[in-house]
Amino acid sequence: PINADRLWDSLAAMAKVGATPKGGNCRLALTDEDKAGRDLFVSWCREAGCTVTVDKVGNIFARRAGRDPDLPPVVMGSHLDTQPTGGRFDGVFGVLAALEVVRSLNDRGVETLHPVEVAVWTNEEGSRFSPPMMGSGVATGVFTLEEILDKVAQDGARLGDELVRTGYAGDAPVEHPMHAYLEAHIEQGPVLEVEGKEIGVVTGAQGQRWYEVTVTGVEAHAGPTPMRLRRDALVAASAMVQAVQRVGLETPGDACATVGILDVHPHSRNVIPGRVFFTVDLRHPDAGTLAEMDRRFRDAVAAIAEQAGVTAEVADFWHFPPTPFAAELVGRVRDAAEGYGFSHRDIVSGAGHDAVYVAGKVPTAMIFIPCENGISHNEVENIAPADGARGAAVLFDALVATAGR
Amino acid sequence: PINADRLWDSLAAMAKVGATPKGGNCRLALTDEDKAGRDLFVSWCREAGCTVTVDKVGNIFARRAGRDPDLPPVVMGSHLDTQPTGGRFDGVFGVLAALEVVRSLNDRGVETLHPVEVAVWTNEEGSRFSPPMMGSGVATGVFTLEEILDKVAQDGARLGDELVRTGYAGDAPVEHPMHAYLEAHIEQGPVLEVEGKEIGVVTGAQGQRWYEVTVTGVEAHAGPTPMRLRRDALVAASAMVQAVQRVGLETPGDACATVGILDVHPHSRNVIPGRVFFTVDLRHPDAGTLAEMDRRFRDAVAAIAEQAGVTAEVADFWHFPPTPFAAELVGRVRDAAEGYGFSHRDIVSGAGHDAVYVAGKVPTAMIFIPCENGISHNEVENIAPADGARGAAVLFDALVATAGR
Ligand SMILES: NC(=O)NCCC(=O)O
Ligand SMILES: NC(=O)NCCC(=O)O
Repeated sequence: PINADRLWDSLAAMAKVGATPKGGNCRLALTDEDKAGRDLFVSWCREAGCTVTVDKVGNIFARRAGRDPDLPPVVMGSHLDTQPTGGRFDGVFGVLAALEVVRSLNDRGVETLHPVEVAVWTNEEGSRFSPPMMGSGVATGVFTLEEILDKVAQDGARLGDELVRTGYAGDAPVEHPMHAYLEAHIEQGPVLEVEGKEIGVVTGAQGQRWYEVTVTGVEAHAGPTPMRLRRDALVAASAMVQAVQRVGLETPGDACATVGILDVHPHSRNVIPGRVFFTVDLRHPDAGTLAEMDRRFRDAVAAIAEQAGVTAEVADFWHFPPTPFAAELVGRVRDAAEGYGFSHRDIVSGAGHDAVYVAGKVPTAMIFIPCENGISHNEVENIAPADGARGAAVLFDALVATAGR
Repeated sequence: PINADRLWDSLAAMAKVGATPKGGNCRLALTDEDKAGRDLFVSWCREAGCTVTVDKVGNIFARRAGRDPDLPPVVMGSHLDTQPTGGRFDGVFGVLAALEVVRSLNDRGVETLHPVEVAVWTNEEGSRFSPPMMGSGVATGVFTLEEILDKVAQDGARLGDELVRTGYAGDAPVEHPMHAYLEAHIEQGPVLEVEGKEIGVVTGAQGQRWYEVTVTGVEAHAGPTPMRLRRDALVAASAMVQAVQRVGLETPGDACATVGILDVHPHSRNVIPGRVFFTVDLRHPDAGTLAEMDRRFRDAVAAIAEQAGVTAEVADFWHFPPTPFAAELVGRVRDAAEGYGFSHRDIVSGAGHDAVYVAGKVPTAMIFIPCENGISHNEVENIAPADGARGAAVLFDALVATAGR
C-alpha cells in the first residue's frame, strides 16, 4: 500500500544531513545537524498537507486531519537524533515510514476516523544529553519539563538554550492526547536476520538500569611510586569493567552489561590515575533477574574497591522496568504481517524506545525490521530496501486498523 | 651557607602562581600560568644581578659571571611547569634552590672561576605536550628544534605558537655549552622518608619505555547486541590495563608500569566502545629487565586482543635507557652531604629529569630531598622546610666545588 521508492529516497535525503565519513550520521540532539534534519522533516510534512505543532520540549507532531476532529490522534513516530557515530536508520526509519504512511493515505484518498500524526521525539539517544527518551519522557510525565530543560550536555550546552537556539522551543503543552501509538524501528540486533524473519512483532522492551560510578584512589608519580603502595583508580576501574562484563556473560537469558563511557583523571601519561568516572548499562527482560544483576554488580564493585584500597561510589542514573506493549495493538501488527504473508516472530526489544514511555499512557506497539549483521549505533548500520518497504506496509495496515475508516 | 627563610618565601610566592583548590599548582607548559611563573623567576634573577637569555625552545638561562668569561658555565636548574594537578615543589624546588645558591654567592661575595647559571627547562612534565623533558632534549640534540616546535598539545595548541604567545620564543641557539650540570629535586617517592635519610645522592635514573596503544573493536548497540557477539574495545583494553599492572607487580627489582591516559570512543553510554586509546609507561633500573617487561607487555596485549576478537596496535612513543650520572660529580654531592653531617643514601631516580638528557653531554649529578609520604604529581605534594634547606646547602657546596674559586 506504500511507495517503497519514495520511502527509500526520503531515507537517502535525510542521510545527507550530518553525514559522516564512513556512511553514517551524526545528528546529536539539538545540534545544527539535528535542526537541519528536523527542518527537512517539517518541510516534507507541510508538503504532505499536515499541520505541524512543536511542544515545549521540542517534540514535533505533524497532523493529518481525521473525520472526527474531537477524537485523539493515532500517533506514529520515532526520533531523528543519532549517536555520535550513528547510522542512517536508527529512529529515522520509524519517522520516515510514518511519513510514508501519511503520504500513501493521501495518494489513496483514505480518510480515517481519528486524526493521524507523525511524531519526532526530542533526544531519544541520550548521548549528547542523558538519559535517553527525554522528549517522550516529558510528554508522558516521567520527567518534568523543568528538569529536562536544565540538562547539560557533554559539551556544556543547556538543553533549554539549545531548543531556543535551534528554533524548536515550541509553545504547545507537553501533555499530548493520543489514542494509540505505533513505532517502526530497525531491530538493532541480529535475531531477525539470523532466523530469516522479515518482521519482528515487538511484545515489549527489556528493563534497563543505568549507573554512574566514581572510583577515587590517590594520584601519584608513575615512576618513583612503588607498585605495592599505589591506589590506582584505573587499575581498580578496569577490574570493575571486567566484572560488569562477567555479569552480562554469566546471567542467563539475554542479559546485557556495558560500560560505554570511562574518563580518567588527571589524564596525564606519567600520573597514576587518582579518579575514574564510568557509566554502566545493565539490561534484562525479567525484572527479578535485572535486580539480581544489580546486586551482583554492586557487590563486585565494592569488593574490588576494598581490595584495591580505593573508594567507589555507585549512583543510580536512570532505569525503567521490563515494559510489555498492548496485546490488542501488538495483535494488529501480527495480523498485518500475517496478512501480507511476511515471515515474522514475536520479539522483545533490547533497546529502549520512545514507545516504552508512551506505553505507560496509551496502547502502544512496535514493528521491527532486520538490519544488516544486527549492527546499530555504528556508521555502517544498513537495511535492505525491501525490509523497509515491508515494515512500512505493516505500519500502514496497523495504523488504518487503529485509526478507523 | 644559604638563607633558608628566603628559599621558603620564594617557594611560597611561586606557589601562588597557578594555585589549585587543594593547595597544589597547575602551570601546564606554556600556558598563561607557566608564563607568569617564568616572568616571576626572570624578575628575581635580574634582581640578583644575573644576565637572562632565552633559547629558541624557551629554555631560560640566568647567568652570574665567573672570573674567566671564556669558560663554560656550571649550570644548576630544573623546571617550573607542572602536572594538571601538580605540587608546589616538583621542579620548582630545583629552580629556586639554584636561585638561592646564586643569591647566597652574592651575599657572601663569592667569586667563582666558571660562570654559574640557573636553567629553567621548557616542558619537563610531558603532560600538556608529550613526551617529557623537551627543552633539555632539544638542548642536547635528542630532539630537533623543528619537531618540538610542531608538537600539538592535548588542547590543540602548537608548541611553537605557544612559545611566541607567551613571549618565550627566544633567539639564543639551542646548543648551550656547559661545564657541568647539577639538579636538586624532591624524590617523588617514599624511600628517603621511610629510611629517615635527609639527602638522596642520585647515582642515575631508571630507564623508561612509553607506548601508545589503540584497540579497535566494533561499535554496536548496548541493548540488542548479545554479549557473545560483541567485540568490545573497552573490555579488551581493561584486560590490558590489568596485564600492565601485573607486569609491574611481577617483575622483580623496582619495576613500574602505569596506564595514565585512556580514552573511549565514541564515548556514549549505550554504545559498545569501538575504539580505545591508552598510554603505557614502563620503567626499570636494569636495561635487560626493561626489555623483558617490553616483551611481556606486548605478548599480553596481543593475546588479549586475539581472545577478544579486536585488534591492538602498540606504538613506541618515547624511551630512554637506564642512565648513570658522572661518578666524580656524584661524589661531590655525597661529600657535601657528608660534610654537613646529613644522613644520606645513594638512590636511583624513579622519574626522568632534565638531568637525564644533560647527562648525555656533560658531567651531571642530582640531589634528592624527601617529600611527605612520598607523594608527587598530586596537589598535596609537600616537603619539610628543613629538608629544602639541606638540599640547597648541598647544592651550594657541590656547585662551588665544581665552578672553582
Ligand atoms: N534505540 C536507542 O538507542 N534508544 C536509546 C535507549 C537505549 O539505549 O536503549
Ligand atoms: N619528574 C617528572 O615528572 N619528569 C617527567 C618524566 C617522568 O615521568 O619521569
